[in-house]
Amino acid sequence: MQISDLSSQAGEWLSGSGPETDVVISSRIRLARNIAGFPFISKASESQRAQVQLLLRKEISRARLEKGLFYLDLQDTDSLDRLLLVERHLISHELARGSGDRGVALGRQEILSIMVNEEDHLRLQVLQSGFQLDQAWSVINKVDDMLGKRVEYAFHGDLGYLTACPTNVGTGLRVSVMLHLPALVITKQIEKVFRAVSKINLAVRGLYGEGTQASGDFYQISNQVTLGQSEEDIIYAMKEVVPQVIKFEREVRQSLFTQSLKGLEDRIWRAYGQLKCARVISSEETMNLLSSLRMGVNLGIVTDVPVTTINEIFLLTQPAHLQKLEGRKLDGGERDVARATFIRNRIN
Amino acid sequence: MQISDLSSQAGEWLSGSGPETDVVISSRIRLARNIAGFPFISKASESQRAQVQLLLRKEISRARLEKGLFYLDLQDTDSLDRLLLVERHLISHELARGSGDRGVALGRQEILSIMVNEEDHLRLQVLQSGFQLDQAWSVINKVDDMLGKRVEYAFHGDLGYLTACPTNVGTGLRVSVMLHLPALVITKQIEKVFRAVSKINLAVRGLYGEGTQASGDFYQISNQVTLGQSEEDIIYAMKEVVPQVIKFEREVRQSLFTQSLKGLEDRIWRAYGQLKCARVISSEETMNLLSSLRMGVNLGIVTDVPVTTINEIFLLTQPAHLQKLEGRKLDGGERDVARATFIRNRIN
Repeated sequence: MQISDLSSQAGEWLSGSGPETDVVISSRIRLARNIAGFPFISKASESQRAQVQLLLRKEISRARLEKGLFYLDLQDTDSLDRLLLVERHLISHELARGSGDRGVALGRQEILSIMVNEEDHLRLQVLQSGFQLDQAWSVINKVDDMLGKRVEYAFHGDLGYLTACPTNVGTGLRVSVMLHLPALVITKQIEKVFRAVSKINLAVRGLYGEGTQASGDFYQISNQVTLGQSEEDIIYAMKEVVPQVIKFEREVRQSLFTQSLKGLEDRIWRAYGQLKCARVISSEETMNLLSSLRMGVNLGIVTDVPVTTINEIFLLTQPAHLQKLEGRKLDGGERDVARATFIRNRIN
Repeated sequence: MQISDLSSQAGEWLSGSGPETDVVISSRIRLARNIAGFPFISKASESQRAQVQLLLRKEISRARLEKGLFYLDLQDTDSLDRLLLVERHLISHELARGSGDRGVALGRQEILSIMVNEEDHLRLQVLQSGFQLDQAWSVINKVDDMLGKRVEYAFHGDLGYLTACPTNVGTGLRVSVMLHLPALVITKQIEKVFRAVSKINLAVRGLYGEGTQASGDFYQISNQVTLGQSEEDIIYAMKEVVPQVIKFEREVRQSLFTQSLKGLEDRIWRAYGQLKCARVISSEETMNLLSSLRMGVNLGIVTDVPVTTINEIFLLTQPAHLQKLEGRKLDGGERDVARATFIRNRIN
């Protein structure tokens, strides 16, 4: 398996096949781990980083975590391919932009990915389509156990797992659910969600995690606290809150449908029309238009575009993907033209 | 012939069949006349107005100006029908909104129309598609002569034809050419036209004459001075200036075409897409989108919509026309929905 195999299709998390897929794009669980006896990355020498990667690469392979899992040395990977992995949510911007010995192990379906030498020595991630935290937890918990038998994690009896950043100490767990909330945005009720969610120590973020803006009405809800709670408690809290947000979004969609159908149809069909007709289009506009179209498909207003196609366009029109598909470097203006062409070919 | 015969089609002036139709929508010539022995309308009693109308209606009929010419008493015409005539440029807003004895004689092709008891006793108008001032002048000059043999016009040896407003005294002539100047608007060069034209005592106005805003990149150029020049001089001046504006617009379209084709195509195809997809659309947005589409057709970018269809949509989506087509009163919101539906049916 190679990176080029990835670029023309979408991973499982974008398949639109998971539960509650009308509102939930994906569920993600990440565990931060460090190896006992090695300093944290920020304090490690180059040779220590190299040793950590060598060790983890070997043990990940030996652990036989998943059939077809392959390891990518990011020092040997060019910047476009690294950006491609960011766009697929398989590695972080930090790992992509960083330097030195680092890598990622990738599962065939892109459900499992394991970053090596990011902020921590190990960042395990399971990413699945729709709302399925139990399933994701069961996968990552097993992977964590299997790896934990082969390497000794840095662990403290009182604190739990030790991590480079104190906010991850304890469980090292981050649970995030990516939601599509167009109706709450249109009706300006999204602020209510922000307020309610922050009161119970959950965070709402944009599409690419911390510090990013929400675009195209896509939001991530994730836990803030990792210490003093068990993994199950954290997941339980998310399983309590997210269904309420899903319900709220669905109710508002229905009320838009019954109370202002014409306006809603207008927004949706115009978005569809723009996507079909544009000759030049930015990624931000694409995201916003796809958001409206996705809602239209989920409301049964548009029936000739599968959600899978929307999800694919969403992924494949990002800068690195576009350039991989075109097979050459493109500047911003060229990308806007290539993006419009790609979209037209997909949905006309 | 009745008003209802008018509402579902466009008059000759919108046929798109005249010369230079890529830039010139229509050419209009109007003559203001008053009948000797009667006070101007603003000073006339009700009975004098009635006499003027009676006299003119009779003489217009007897003059056999055109086969099928029919007279419409506007006091017996409801406000929706009067607005319909305004939208077709057959009568002025003032005549539509006014009260008392007044009317209009309409030719079958809507080339000739004669308003009775507007600001002056008589306002003759010839309106033709494209740039054809000589043709329009020849028609109106003949009509003026024929009527002038049957009624005595108020005329002064030094001043010429006497009119209610001093700005019309002399020839009583107004020559206007309606232009479609999208490229000059896009490139912000339209101001140059304004400046050049006003220096030689011509005026630039919006679509419905004095005091109206230009919308959808449509502008009227017309003469300001009616006194101290012959009719031929005035028409000659317009025939000198308008071709320069046409040339300027065409050059800028071509330079957009060669220098920023993608941006131009994007604007045009998106306009087309919006028109095809919208479920709710205002008349102003319609005008702007039709303007882009019209340019696209004239540049050969869009090939599956005839200019005639664009012109028809342009006319038939105005408020009174929409209501006539629907056969009932519509409020603003209902019109925006009906307009979108009408457009979709016409161009999909």
